[in-house]
Amino acid sequence: MPTISNKGKRMPASPIRKLTPYADEAKKMGKKVFHLNIGQPDIETPETMLNAVKNINFKVWAYTPSQGNASYREKLSTYYNNIGYNISADNILVTTGGSEAITIAMESCFDPGDEVIIPEPFYANYNGFACMAGVEVKPIPSSIDNGFALPNIAEFEKLIGPKTKGVIICNPNNPTGYLYSQEEMEALKGLCLKHDLYLFSDEAYREFCYDGNTFISPMHMEGLENHVVVFDTVSKRYSACGARLGCLITKNREILEAGLKFAQARLSPPAVAQIAGEAAIDTPQSYFDNVISEYTKRRDLLVEGLNKIPGVYCPTPGGAFYVVAKLPIDNADKFCQWMLEEFDYNNQTVMMAPATGFYSDTRLGEQQVRLAYVLCLEDLASAISCIEKGLENYPGRTQ
Amino acid sequence: MPTISNKGKRMPASPIRKLTPYADEAKKMGKKVFHLNIGQPDIETPETMLNAVKNINFKVWAYTPSQGNASYREKLSTYYNNIGYNISADNILVTTGGSEAITIAMESCFDPGDEVIIPEPFYANYNGFACMAGVEVKPIPSSIDNGFALPNIAEFEKLIGPKTKGVIICNPNNPTGYLYSQEEMEALKGLCLKHDLYLFSDEAYREFCYDGNTFISPMHMEGLENHVVVFDTVSKRYSACGARLGCLITKNREILEAGLKFAQARLSPPAVAQIAGEAAIDTPQSYFDNVISEYTKRRDLLVEGLNKIPGVYCPTPGGAFYVVAKLPIDNADKFCQWMLEEFDYNNQTVMMAPATGFYSDTRLGEQQVRLAYVLCLEDLASAISCIEKGLENYPGRTQ
Repeated sequence: MPTISNKGKRMPASPIRKLTPYADEAKKMGKKVFHLNIGQPDIETPETMLNAVKNINFKVWAYTPSQGNASYREKLSTYYNNIGYNISADNILVTTGGSEAITIAMESCFDPGDEVIIPEPFYANYNGFACMAGVEVKPIPSSIDNGFALPNIAEFEKLIGPKTKGVIICNPNNPTGYLYSQEEMEALKGLCLKHDLYLFSDEAYREFCYDGNTFISPMHMEGLENHVVVFDTVSKRYSACGARLGCLITKNREILEAGLKFAQARLSPPAVAQIAGEAAIDTPQSYFDNVISEYTKRRDLLVEGLNKIPGVYCPTPGGAFYVVAKLPIDNADKFCQWMLEEFDYNNQTVMMAPATGFYSDTRLGEQQVRLAYVLCLEDLASAISCIEKGLENYPGRTQ
Repeated sequence: MPTISNKGKRMPASPIRKLTPYADEAKKMGKKVFHLNIGQPDIETPETMLNAVKNINFKVWAYTPSQGNASYREKLSTYYNNIGYNISADNILVTTGGSEAITIAMESCFDPGDEVIIPEPFYANYNGFACMAGVEVKPIPSSIDNGFALPNIAEFEKLIGPKTKGVIICNPNNPTGYLYSQEEMEALKGLCLKHDLYLFSDEAYREFCYDGNTFISPMHMEGLENHVVVFDTVSKRYSACGARLGCLITKNREILEAGLKFAQARLSPPAVAQIAGEAAIDTPQSYFDNVISEYTKRRDLLVEGLNKIPGVYCPTPGGAFYVVAKLPIDNADKFCQWMLEEFDYNNQTVMMAPATGFYSDTRLGEQQVRLAYVLCLEDLASAISCIEKGLENYPGRTQ
């Protein structure tokens, strides 16, 4: 029997999905499970987008150009120029989800053995994409004590060696919800120019900034034209995760050329999703106003509710729809599994993502969980009660 | 300025798409261009599939499971069992196009530096996928003189070394249209068992076998359970290339486990395509009967028409919708470009794929082109006339 690859062995399993069998079992036993574990919002996809799907009028479901439909890229460029990116359609490579934008950028920019610095906790799948590209992730811990602000630049510089090729940020951040400030972005700019590093900016949650805070992209910053690659997706913006439609944006011609070759190998991004994505750009601002208002209420309810529970600390994030909270527990993996397997409150329980999966050194996340506020206020309130009661009863409670 | 990766430099550009600017220019000048260069059929997608798209009734366009919707995998398994594969839904990993099935299989089975043997001419994008995985392709030339039959097994054995991990076949073949016989498949089975090699079977064109010939998959063969990985796609079967929906099939548990980790990293295959793909399985046999009848007529017209042109030789393939023809020319790249740039016949011309892109040693393909019979009989007849006149006038004609 032939042996599978070392890459196949090393590839990290999804930390969240390890818990799925326990959630399935809980549901089989009749428990209601509140899913705060995954970034699948309950928000409805805009009708503009769904109607575009329902109104398709082609007879042959054909390939699109590898870089995406010209009309979609054109319209996307107006969307980005409205937020000050100063690009043309040629700077956009349409991808199959934001995920493919990340893999194409990694393959285009990094060779096996190269190193990339990522503030942690970070989106766990960066580990998988790095594994596929043979790239080594060098994590820099951020701290819950200052709300997961950007680590000091001196900490980055300690990690920079001859193989360091780039930095990845996710802004607003998944899993912490932290929104980087102008000062932090300027500091990153200085770092990347000084050491000639790529700056990969994952902007999946761009639309979701709260309390009047301004989103700053490295695309807004002069002098970084050849260093910046933006990853974007329609998944969160329009609650259309299943469309699998994203894009890579850069002003660096070499990356665009190399990236196109990877895009050509897989032929085409999904065609119907592009039609819907093009229509989605006409989604009225009122849709976003409503969504942001809803997410703000949920965030406030969740953060306040969590901080009222004895021994729990949860900073108030400025964006995205996640919080990372510190719990008085021995081990987040055990606790999250116990909540599904052993616990219920009025026959209800909560599925959370143990933060261990978001840190390279899992010990840093052992007392933390990520909660996605992707459920309505009523369910969220019930979920908070479950967490409170769960912590009261959890045998591995530490305080 | 940071430098792009060596992989980005080495990654092969799509050989066909190099000609696209010349085709665009020809069209701008008012020429009609018959596209025989790419496997985008003009055949209509079944209504069952398009109606499923038009009738979506979800409110949230959500992620599906990483391995694909359970209902789709279940229905797919009945389709495969109807053709004798003897599998369950658990043997299927739904992918974003057949392309992703290939990349996931390569990542799961091969490590950088491993070698894979592929009879050539072969689908050019295998080179790209191998480059991404760091895998070295060892080609074995097949010959137009016997219609591109499987090379002798002794030729394979000459290439087998300690790093050889697998063989890739495409059956019926792209670009040659060759359909492997029972004897050839048995020979491959013996080879893979003797040397413990993976056998990757790309079956994108399975439905298109002509003249009553039977399609043989390695899934039909006992004893290869742990060696075989099938790549499949809805692209050609239902003329739905833009759906980006494929799957990987294997009975090897290790590959399924490793493959799922790669699938989880990219979260989900496209959701609407899966709904359509599930509906497509109810496409009536009459649809395929019509398509096969149409393709048979086109193949016969094309092969006969080409062989009537002085100096041209084109074998009659048993499947797919491609032929590779030998032309009396100095260089296929130059000829195909000249046809677009310099030539027209009644203001019409033809875009073909130079076979150089399908061989590792481009010289082997210098006098060959691939033609996809994806146009109606009338257009195909006009295209043949263009090729005939083109060859009469081409300055690089060799006979």
